[in-house]
Amino acid sequence: MKLASFRARGRESYGVVTDEGIIDLVSRIGTNFPTLRQALKSGMNDVRRASRGQFPDLRLTDVSFLPVIPDPRRILCIGVNYEGHRAETGRPMTQHPTVFIRFASTLAGHLQTLVKPRVSEMFDFEGELAVVIGRAGRYIDEAEALGHVAGYTCFNDGSVRDWQNHTSQFTPGKNFPSTGGFGPWMVTSDEIRDPSRLTIVTRLNGSEVQRGACSDMTFTVPKLISYISTFTPLAPGDVIATGTPAGVGYKRTPPLFMKPGDICEVEITGIGTLRNVVKAE
Amino acid sequence: MKLASFRARGRESYGVVTDEGIIDLVSRIGTNFPTLRQALKSGMNDVRRASRGQFPDLRLTDVSFLPVIPDPRRILCIGVNYEGHRAETGRPMTQHPTVFIRFASTLAGHLQTLVKPRVSEMFDFEGELAVVIGRAGRYIDEAEALGHVAGYTCFNDGSVRDWQNHTSQFTPGKNFPSTGGFGPWMVTSDEIRDPSRLTIVTRLNGSEVQRGACSDMTFTVPKLISYISTFTPLAPGDVIATGTPAGVGYKRTPPLFMKPGDICEVEITGIGTLRNVVKAE
Repeated sequence: MKLASFRARGRESYGVVTDEGIIDLVSRIGTNFPTLRQALKSGMNDVRRASRGQFPDLRLTDVSFLPVIPDPRRILCIGVNYEGHRAETGRPMTQHPTVFIRFASTLAGHLQTLVKPRVSEMFDFEGELAVVIGRAGRYIDEAEALGHVAGYTCFNDGSVRDWQNHTSQFTPGKNFPSTGGFGPWMVTSDEIRDPSRLTIVTRLNGSEVQRGACSDMTFTVPKLISYISTFTPLAPGDVIATGTPAGVGYKRTPPLFMKPGDICEVEITGIGTLRNVVKAE
Repeated sequence: MKLASFRARGRESYGVVTDEGIIDLVSRIGTNFPTLRQALKSGMNDVRRASRGQFPDLRLTDVSFLPVIPDPRRILCIGVNYEGHRAETGRPMTQHPTVFIRFASTLAGHLQTLVKPRVSEMFDFEGELAVVIGRAGRYIDEAEALGHVAGYTCFNDGSVRDWQNHTSQFTPGKNFPSTGGFGPWMVTSDEIRDPSRLTIVTRLNGSEVQRGACSDMTFTVPKLISYISTFTPLAPGDVIATGTPAGVGYKRTPPLFMKPGDICEVEITGIGTLRNVVKAE
């Protein structure tokens, strides 16, 4: 099942994406679950019941996509989680995942614009697999971790490189408004039993710039969930962006940054393609 | 004026702290402003009107203090912002502030317990001045910055050092639940015209372990507000913890960490004393 958050008919909603269109769920269960994050808390049973046998209400072209979860409480991002990317950045190997935080205000939905800040000319792409948490937990065992996942989606961890490298901490470069993409929809975990079998491709203006196999992650999805849930409780709707493979723009010769008018896509096998156009602030 | 958030009579509230007790504001303006964060959005006029000439409803001993702002949208913390602390950590000087993020779940109110995680024996104190934003803004000029401050309070940026140093990013060590203190109340900015004249003292079990003059900050409060508001919009209730002076526990010989039963206090001139007891998870 594919689940998306969107704006249509003047209000925010979420629903099930099918080949024929979207089954609007706010009109069906919105009283109890006004957002997808809140619907995830019910363990998805209400979502399945409400959508079973229903016909789509909306065409995909009728909606403006929002970030898959528009109001996550926690967005945890993993740095240097593919060996190829670690090598190109020159950062040391570590025994633990590198974790930083993005605010929800930094993310745009599918087909929405990414905003190149006016204070930088170093706006870079990072195609990633994102995990959406479905079941709350603390000190989650690796062996149980995938049972806490509601679904998977594409993520563009857009980075303002000069601001990221002002100091040791990545925060500024990862938190300009609307610099990241999160969508187009999440595919529920019953359809993706093993996220390590997925492949990520990032394209800039149609040219492939990154290709990575999720099996090459240094810290696997279960390991990340286990590590993160040791220092912070995870809750439905929390997001973990699992890191980007090699090929980022600022480590190329010459460097390749995103400019207004560029189209950046992140495609993951079995999920779909997140597409965003870049505009100037 | 001193403003606190607290729990009393079975519900969450906020109010004005006086020598005689607390004037409860939720019972007066809670319909429009259910939390202090929301009251700050009104520019404090409603708070002043509602409290003028009123007598306290509650004794200080009648309430359980919450973090001054229990539900901030952004908590931005500054690392190595005093030269003495930078020197003791051995970190390089930087041209820009070092910024990391804490989740709201990591903070405890005045007189509430700080929780030493069971996975670490390196739970350290960091006494700091915290700024609470009152007026929204982006690209705030340094010269205008103090006009965006609602008030000032004490902050204990409690740090789990081994987890902070797992990788380059501080996130894990700064985000265990209830490891930081935020209180006891905020003093409104009309009573603190120049935060650089404040002095911070941290005490562990009554012994002074840190003493710093806010005039020694590497990046001043206006500079921090200006820098941060360039990469993220600031809104009422957002919090900036401005960094800790020298004397942290893990750089002492021998190291000094907080243990269950310890009492940690952060006192700032003209504000008050934040006091927390440490317990084991």
